[in-house]
Amino acid sequence: MKKIGIIGGTGYTGGELARILCVHPDIEITAMTSRQSAGKKVSDTQTYLKGYVDIEYTNSLPNELDLVFVATPHGVAMNEVPALLGSGTKVIDMSGDYRLHDTSAYKKWYGHDHTDAKNLKDSVYGLPELFRSEIKKTNIVANPGCYATATILATAPLLIADVVKEEITVDAKSGTSGAGMVPSPRIHHPFCGESIIPYSVGSHRHQPEIEYVLNTVSKKCSDVLFVPHLLPIVRGILSTCYLTLKKDVTNEDITKIYNKQYGKEPFVHFVDEPSIRSVVCSNHCQVGASVFNKKVVAFGAIDNLVKGASGQAVQCANIMLGLKETAGLNVPGMGV
Amino acid sequence: MKKIGIIGGTGYTGGELARILCVHPDIEITAMTSRQSAGKKVSDTQTYLKGYVDIEYTNSLPNELDLVFVATPHGVAMNEVPALLGSGTKVIDMSGDYRLHDTSAYKKWYGHDHTDAKNLKDSVYGLPELFRSEIKKTNIVANPGCYATATILATAPLLIADVVKEEITVDAKSGTSGAGMVPSPRIHHPFCGESIIPYSVGSHRHQPEIEYVLNTVSKKCSDVLFVPHLLPIVRGILSTCYLTLKKDVTNEDITKIYNKQYGKEPFVHFVDEPSIRSVVCSNHCQVGASVFNKKVVAFGAIDNLVKGASGQAVQCANIMLGLKETAGLNVPGMGV
Amino acid sequence: MKKIGIIGGTGYTGGELARILCVHPDIEITAMTSRQSAGKKVSDTQTYLKGYVDIEYTNSLPNELDLVFVATPHGVAMNEVPALLGSGTKVIDMSGDYRLHDTSAYKKWYGHDHTDAKNLKDSVYGLPELFRSEIKKTNIVANPGCYATATILATAPLLIADVVKEEITVDAKSGTSGAGMVPSPRIHHPFCGESIIPYSVGSHRHQPEIEYVLNTVSKKCSDVLFVPHLLPIVRGILSTCYLTLKKDVTNEDITKIYNKQYGKEPFVHFVDEPSIRSVVCSNHCQVGASVFNKKVVAFGAIDNLVKGASGQAVQCANIMLGLKETAGLNVPGMGV
Amino acid sequence: MKKIGIIGGTGYTGGELARILCVHPDIEITAMTSRQSAGKKVSDTQTYLKGYVDIEYTNSLPNELDLVFVATPHGVAMNEVPALLGSGTKVIDMSGDYRLHDTSAYKKWYGHDHTDAKNLKDSVYGLPELFRSEIKKTNIVANPGCYATATILATAPLLIADVVKEEITVDAKSGTSGAGMVPSPRIHHPFCGESIIPYSVGSHRHQPEIEYVLNTVSKKCSDVLFVPHLLPIVRGILSTCYLTLKKDVTNEDITKIYNKQYGKEPFVHFVDEPSIRSVVCSNHCQVGASVFNKKVVAFGAIDNLVKGASGQAVQCANIMLGLKETAGLNVPGMGV
Repeated sequence: MKKIGIIGGTGYTGGELARILCVHPDIEITAMTSRQSAGKKVSDTQTYLKGYVDIEYTNSLPNELDLVFVATPHGVAMNEVPALLGSGTKVIDMSGDYRLHDTSAYKKWYGHDHTDAKNLKDSVYGLPELFRSEIKKTNIVANPGCYATATILATAPLLIADVVKEEITVDAKSGTSGAGMVPSPRIHHPFCGESIIPYSVGSHRHQPEIEYVLNTVSKKCSDVLFVPHLLPIVRGILSTCYLTLKKDVTNEDITKIYNKQYGKEPFVHFVDEPSIRSVVCSNHCQVGASVFNKKVVAFGAIDNLVKGASGQAVQCANIMLGLKETAGLNVPGMGV
Repeated sequence: MKKIGIIGGTGYTGGELARILCVHPDIEITAMTSRQSAGKKVSDTQTYLKGYVDIEYTNSLPNELDLVFVATPHGVAMNEVPALLGSGTKVIDMSGDYRLHDTSAYKKWYGHDHTDAKNLKDSVYGLPELFRSEIKKTNIVANPGCYATATILATAPLLIADVVKEEITVDAKSGTSGAGMVPSPRIHHPFCGESIIPYSVGSHRHQPEIEYVLNTVSKKCSDVLFVPHLLPIVRGILSTCYLTLKKDVTNEDITKIYNKQYGKEPFVHFVDEPSIRSVVCSNHCQVGASVFNKKVVAFGAIDNLVKGASGQAVQCANIMLGLKETAGLNVPGMGV
Repeated sequence: MKKIGIIGGTGYTGGELARILCVHPDIEITAMTSRQSAGKKVSDTQTYLKGYVDIEYTNSLPNELDLVFVATPHGVAMNEVPALLGSGTKVIDMSGDYRLHDTSAYKKWYGHDHTDAKNLKDSVYGLPELFRSEIKKTNIVANPGCYATATILATAPLLIADVVKEEITVDAKSGTSGAGMVPSPRIHHPFCGESIIPYSVGSHRHQPEIEYVLNTVSKKCSDVLFVPHLLPIVRGILSTCYLTLKKDVTNEDITKIYNKQYGKEPFVHFVDEPSIRSVVCSNHCQVGASVFNKKVVAFGAIDNLVKGASGQAVQCANIMLGLKETAGLNVPGMGV
Repeated sequence: MKKIGIIGGTGYTGGELARILCVHPDIEITAMTSRQSAGKKVSDTQTYLKGYVDIEYTNSLPNELDLVFVATPHGVAMNEVPALLGSGTKVIDMSGDYRLHDTSAYKKWYGHDHTDAKNLKDSVYGLPELFRSEIKKTNIVANPGCYATATILATAPLLIADVVKEEITVDAKSGTSGAGMVPSPRIHHPFCGESIIPYSVGSHRHQPEIEYVLNTVSKKCSDVLFVPHLLPIVRGILSTCYLTLKKDVTNEDITKIYNKQYGKEPFVHFVDEPSIRSVVCSNHCQVGASVFNKKVVAFGAIDNLVKGASGQAVQCANIMLGLKETAGLNVPGMGV
């Protein structure tokens, strides 16, 4: 049994890590920290974990953990990570702190300096379908953003196959749980219910993240216009991506391209009609793509809290700890 | 043209008053106050009012208004009302400050002293279907609570007809706009979406309000158990009320009782299947009731912001100002 | 009082016409036909119309109507229209039968021959903001599609101002009422609830309609890729449109372009954040647009049953009948 | 590995059985039948099962199965069960065919004769928390109704402890997936979205089922008024139950009563605030209860497709097959 800890256990990603890990065959939750709930049983504040996570929240983690998930907000994580790595613990950071490899890009998009340039440089982007071998070797993984996961998985095969131009438009739609657990005017039900709200058009932090990763895997300079919309649902992301072909390509070619990329992947499937309901509550991603004249429309659907956050982090942890990659994640989506 | 003012124009009930009154044939919005938005155009912060309410929010109201709607939170209204009444303006208070006629009941349910006992005693409960003649004569109306409106309209005819016992169980369901515009954990979309949340069971402030009004109209001592639930919809209340017959009564008798009570009412209809969608965005209320052995199940459906708040206030204002009672309110519900 | 009739009064657009017209100051609903409900009172099957539309559904319309709304499915309307026009009645067809001016285009997109080529040629596209003078003179209006209305209003100013290329990508999102009242697997709540469903990608009938109208107003050959998505809400459309600049244009220029086009329009407003909730239950459309490098993202938000169907039809009827264009439509959206 | 079959694999309960069983450690899905989809891969029609259930639907089941789940509509199951039992296979019927032990009650509530009186008499009601030992010994289990499960688990402890009167009012709320996968006017999204729809008031088939079971476990003649409401959510039931105390009982007594009943149950937890989100996508049930004067309000929350259908059936199968009762079901609810 590998021993792990979670820093920031009361937020949505911390809770979702606990939900997944509490029935993981090879990993044991040794400790979860929470400033406001220290001393309380996890299952008393999050009653759905009753019988599964009955330990108490603590103020700090014990030593000698195999891996720590840092589930704190952007800007906080980079204060925790250096000491953890220094003590020999592997780290998966759930925030955006270690995703952009460049301190100046970080400052531009996150609004403050990065204080851990060294580990930022060494961190690996935790998308196993594209960076599996690097994840295996690193001690510090930057867990991908939810929108970024859906969008990159939907579009990377076309860029890698070199059949599309670098200019990509992404019209993404997310459930409200992506905004976290702190109440705010935009996530207030009477405001976002019975509507769809575009926000951060062209200025969302996942835009440079998507560009950075697509550039890395395709060796091209992708130029992404990213337009997120808030959906009146709790979980799920659908990313609708518009690309322009630079070669004559048929739908059969498209199918071959995606099957070559994902044919052996346990969690990514190429299907005719990607659907949020098919993947919700699972670590699966459904992708699809079709040609319309000189355009390709590509879709990616995930559960933003699982493949878009905590499930993907567990997938990375499995790889980093030498476990079976699918351990604890091997369940289908809800379907209905 | 009658001139009115709105104190507290940025909240949901203030905005809804503006939405209704801006096309009222005989009433003109002279001023709307707002502490945080004073100096801004109403239609700049609430863009749906563009072309309809293009005045600016002010810090205070001008003199010589015919009527003022006080749309501030509980506890604030009673600081505004005495001066308004003193200056000869008619007042409709949208909060709970003037609904319970007893300062000790007020203190018990609202948690602080009532500072305007005199006007509390004189205030009239603004439910025109039951207190029309009193509303006509008063200068101070306590606009009913949303749940209270749906529940009282659904049950009062049976109590007035003296066919049911005093013990009433009310299982009420409300859309989230009833909670107002300030974000909170319960109204956070990921918490209340895809769920139904019971809250304030047996301790909601509308429970004594319902009891007080039902006792007044039926001369009986009703004993209400009120159990509100938060629905994952924006607008609408359905109140499902359980009563026990004390006489042999058929469904035909029930129909007669409701038609006697509401047959000439413009806004309350007795129908087979009361439905939120049929009344949403209108001042209408649909009620229904059926006998099951010794029980009656009665339903009341309203739009919580219209008949449950601002529409009802306008209906009262029409009566108080000697206008046609239906003026500015004479539109059907959305249906779909 | 102008006398109108509605053919097909039980569907969503027929019901919505009744909801709007029953309080219209200058128009009277003389008759509504329905095959399945003939002989029943309208307000018995659609209880939200109680007290507003208490006439009975009939099998056919009387003579001597000023105007008839044909609210039947595609393919049915063209069987009704010739006789109506022949008898001197003005006609507004709510279906797609008279929108594409070309019988071969009609056959390609609707799958069967058009049997009324003559009136097809004479029909006017009922979007007053672009075809007001033509609507005034015609006897036959093709009421625009819901998606088409939101998309054309959002993008036409940029094409007319000649600042964008002809290639347009439209990512549109619609509430479920757009699908009409007949149950189907896609509109089954457990399928479409808590999800967003792309459908008819690149093959929706509004794609050629949008292209046809944009080409007409801009004299350019627009090439539209139209990707509709089904939202888990009842009413409302948001159309997110992606265009490419062909000139250096700033956000200030954009604002001027839209204000020049719509500054005097009663129902179309250019705002920073177009929102479905701001227009729902009203004939209003909110549009917005911003520049991102060489791209423009333009939004259009409407209530699909009002400005996207029955409200727009009433607006056209007002124009055709010489009434005030805003008569019966002059109410703001719900806001909340 | 135990071998099981599913008759009627394309419906919601059949699909949910497959979703759960495909990762069950001790059970193997040997065959799934479907009339319309025979010959197709399960994971081609239900893509969320890709990689999990890649067998083909068949027309009939093979012999030598350990257990068969009959997931066909009411009235169909009783044609399948006798032969299955005759061949020595254990059977769990998901429909209502074997729940009411009395052929005359069956005829009254289901509208047609029961053709398998013998097995009806022998069948065991598959609620393990109340009938565990009987389930262990039987070959035919009637899987409980979804509403019945939530309601019985919420109220049975009070009746067994003999602290409440026999008269019970149940105000139940269910997500739309409870209605199955066939489209219908009531489950059409524009009708049931943004609303809550009461239906089958006092005439729902789960009313006699609840009465029958409560009478069986408490030896009293419970008299239930059951009022179901359709919620605009996909999954989840909340049953709000109103009972009257016949003894002086405190909230502490209530807690003891429930803990005595469920303290050792793996899937039923007594909590302060039972919540649908806490149990969704799991076999868990949360119950709660509080005293208000002489009344008790008791809540039960489940996922209607898991503890309310397929999860409970798997729990019963585990018991019938001598497996660990929690096998394949040991995961917490989603929480968010």
